[in-house]
Amino acid sequence: MWTTQAFDVPGAHQGFREPSSSRAYHLPAIPFFLFHCSLLHNTKYNSLCYTEISFLGLPSYPKSLCHPPGRHSFCPFRAPAFALGNMNSFHQWELLLHLLLLCDIIPGFIWGFLMFAGFEGHFPCSTQTLTTQQPMLSWRRMRKMDSRAMESPSLWEEALKLIGAEKGVVHLAAAAVLSAAWAPWAKQEGKPLWKLLVDMDPQTLVSCIDFRYITDVLTEEEACEILRQSQVGKKERVEEQMLAHGYPAYTMSCAWLGHPDATLKQLCSEALKDSWTRFKVKVGANLQDDIRRCQLIKNMIGPEKTLMMDANQRWDVPEAVEWVTKLAEFKPLWTEEPTSPDDILGHAAVSKALAPLGIGVAIGEQCHNRVIFKQLLEAKALKFLQIDSCRLGSVNENLSVLLMAKKFEIRVPWGFPVCPHLGGVGLCELVQHLIMFDFISVSASQDRMCEYVDHLHEHFKHPVLIREASYMPPKDAGYSTEMKEDSVKRHRYPDGEVWKKLLTAQGN
Amino acid sequence: MWTTQAFDVPGAHQGFREPSSSRAYHLPAIPFFLFHCSLLHNTKYNSLCYTEISFLGLPSYPKSLCHPPGRHSFCPFRAPAFALGNMNSFHQWELLLHLLLLCDIIPGFIWGFLMFAGFEGHFPCSTQTLTTQQPMLSWRRMRKMDSRAMESPSLWEEALKLIGAEKGVVHLAAAAVLSAAWAPWAKQEGKPLWKLLVDMDPQTLVSCIDFRYITDVLTEEEACEILRQSQVGKKERVEEQMLAHGYPAYTMSCAWLGHPDATLKQLCSEALKDSWTRFKVKVGANLQDDIRRCQLIKNMIGPEKTLMMDANQRWDVPEAVEWVTKLAEFKPLWTEEPTSPDDILGHAAVSKALAPLGIGVAIGEQCHNRVIFKQLLEAKALKFLQIDSCRLGSVNENLSVLLMAKKFEIRVPWGFPVCPHLGGVGLCELVQHLIMFDFISVSASQDRMCEYVDHLHEHFKHPVLIREASYMPPKDAGYSTEMKEDSVKRHRYPDGEVWKKLLTAQGN
Repeated sequence: MWTTQAFDVPGAHQGFREPSSSRAYHLPAIPFFLFHCSLLHNTKYNSLCYTEISFLGLPSYPKSLCHPPGRHSFCPFRAPAFALGNMNSFHQWELLLHLLLLCDIIPGFIWGFLMFAGFEGHFPCSTQTLTTQQPMLSWRRMRKMDSRAMESPSLWEEALKLIGAEKGVVHLAAAAVLSAAWAPWAKQEGKPLWKLLVDMDPQTLVSCIDFRYITDVLTEEEACEILRQSQVGKKERVEEQMLAHGYPAYTMSCAWLGHPDATLKQLCSEALKDSWTRFKVKVGANLQDDIRRCQLIKNMIGPEKTLMMDANQRWDVPEAVEWVTKLAEFKPLWTEEPTSPDDILGHAAVSKALAPLGIGVAIGEQCHNRVIFKQLLEAKALKFLQIDSCRLGSVNENLSVLLMAKKFEIRVPWGFPVCPHLGGVGLCELVQHLIMFDFISVSASQDRMCEYVDHLHEHFKHPVLIREASYMPPKDAGYSTEMKEDSVKRHRYPDGEVWKKLLTAQGN
Repeated sequence: MWTTQAFDVPGAHQGFREPSSSRAYHLPAIPFFLFHCSLLHNTKYNSLCYTEISFLGLPSYPKSLCHPPGRHSFCPFRAPAFALGNMNSFHQWELLLHLLLLCDIIPGFIWGFLMFAGFEGHFPCSTQTLTTQQPMLSWRRMRKMDSRAMESPSLWEEALKLIGAEKGVVHLAAAAVLSAAWAPWAKQEGKPLWKLLVDMDPQTLVSCIDFRYITDVLTEEEACEILRQSQVGKKERVEEQMLAHGYPAYTMSCAWLGHPDATLKQLCSEALKDSWTRFKVKVGANLQDDIRRCQLIKNMIGPEKTLMMDANQRWDVPEAVEWVTKLAEFKPLWTEEPTSPDDILGHAAVSKALAPLGIGVAIGEQCHNRVIFKQLLEAKALKFLQIDSCRLGSVNENLSVLLMAKKFEIRVPWGFPVCPHLGGVGLCELVQHLIMFDFISVSASQDRMCEYVDHLHEHFKHPVLIREASYMPPKDAGYSTEMKEDSVKRHRYPDGEVWKKLLTAQGN
């Protein structure tokens, strides 16, 4: 059993720091940062550094990346809501928070799916709780007690489970930590992450997966076998497909709920010029509005191009069926998140009701762990499976879901294509690696597509490259998570240039 | 749409305060406290105070309890793990944290299911982030913008949903806030909460329930009808059953995993002397140990008394079936939490496999919201439904689950008896109100029982009263949540007397 002991690290708070008069505090960042620090910092047992990384669920992690801890620093980055454009009122409150952790133990950027309330009513945040004159951080030192230490090689301490195992903000934090561990691994190999995964032997890949609670549908041996079988044709899929043509995408940039019709037309027109052929529309606020907007889009894109709909959990089950039936004339390929992301049987009921209309159900962006996906597949509750690079436990848990989807594919005619979610805000940069790996090493099937939102890419050192409505494989080594220093500096909260202006304007 | 605006409240941090040299910070307390403050504080729109309480999901809340905000203070209480006795190694890391919020808006105690790592590896916590020289809290002011403001009368802001709707630490925090609102309401009426609920007319009770995502199985009208029908025989159930005999309970105090056999025998012997007839045993660490311990207990309690087993999510589905089958000779009434609390279909599979052995499945303590319970009932994934007063969204969400259980009861021979979970630590004090309400006003059925753990009751002003292995109905007005001031003072972290000694010993 791992034991933990709290201790202070003087000077742990060096680095980028909020002024001490900062007025707010972090919500998700705290468990995230604590988790990160608790897992990685080790002042006494240098030799255990590698064991700690094993504890992260990466037993094959390169030892050369583990070395004595040093300075940690971090800085919050926020893009105010207005910069996101006039989007869906549901998303009106989104501010993006990136935590950049520059860390000598694992150099890299921690990138998490951390959302906050919007600009006008911004969710109070700062890093003051994380960096103060007196060290406020308590570091958790992991000590191996006995041979059972590796019994549950997981990020989850028993106590944290009681808050709600593998869900909520702590799971998001764990995902961020794991993603930060993958990035430098890929960098050290001189490969983009998708290539690191593609080149990895099945045994090593499978060693990164937590199979707890899914062995009734997928065992380690079966996972290995899937990966071994997919070696056939791999080279061709890399070179003739991915490198040559990229991975198909669809756009979510045109039809947010908040867009007036004129904007919708303009954006749709631009997207058509940019060769987009698949368009997703937000629905669910008002049926008449939905009918009008879908008609508008359909008129512009024509019958050959694809339309999908996204309700972002608006409805109960009966309402979902009724509402989508009234939109069936627009022949959407799928309706996304019709109801609660926790409602597996509800989505199964919606799927069954809409199947005669030729409309599938897509879901996954808020499905919090592999156990939910397991059941969605078992219950045939979805037609299109939407992973998320940061909602699930990073690459590790996404691997398990991709493999379960492959395992289940033969049970249904449609094969459960994986069509990842991403709402922009850098999720594109991450998930592109996963989908390319999925095509090359797991599914070998391109009857699928990945979401694309034209959102905040300019803040990334290695933004996605879209060509002919397809994701082109990243070439730079790493996980594409690095942000531009100037962007971070300008958007630092609350004293970065961008926020100073906003907060001054708000005060007036 | 509600809008929010952040602003500071000078002096918001008055009251009990941790020394500024405190070294750690709160994890669950932060979203909890923020939530509470954000919902209740209103410096400008006094007339909206009542609306804010409506937003809490309590539209009938007495206006007299809403008045201008004043001083807020709070203090963490912790019981170190060693005080919990030699319990289950799974629970070894439990520290109980109570946040007492003495608040002029809603006088009362906020009590939340907040668990932390155990003493030796205690999860770093303090309230420094909540109370500092410079106000760190940002308060969120709710302003009603238009007629759609009451469209989604729920605690859930859209942005918070993105962290993971109605699950994890934020849902626990919301539950704590709601529980704190119920307590003074009962007090003002001069009634214990169970009586407040029993005396409430169906319409008012139903107005406290959030029916989102469950209308496919239970509508407001159906809920009202269930409550109306249960009026028959209510008086007799109160007087002849509850007041005279109390509510049946079972004990979890004897057989934690960490107990050596001698302790197990001693505790079991004492429990038998105290007239306990139902005993639960923790299982799942080691099969041979489980066989030995179950045999030991069974020998002592005999064939007429009831044995149950609790695995605390130890197994995958196949392992659960295999393991419990090997314990079937002890004829357990149920096996509890055999697998992941997210695995509805997994529990359905276990239920089906164990049914021929006469063993039911009990689950619920970590089922995070009503949508999960809806599916557990739909899938017949459980035989015994275990609500939790603090895991679900307080009284409000528990009401919805009790009513769904009643609605589904006719679909199965066993009727889905509600047998609440509580791990001690004050949960007994709260859930007793819910089960009495359930018996009197919903189920009218006593083929059910409530967990009891002899744990930390001495810190409560109005601890549970157990007589002949039954919960006697509380008589004091309120929700039994109040803790003794001296207990709070002594266990305040880190400068209370108890913690000072522990931390000094730890340092040596």
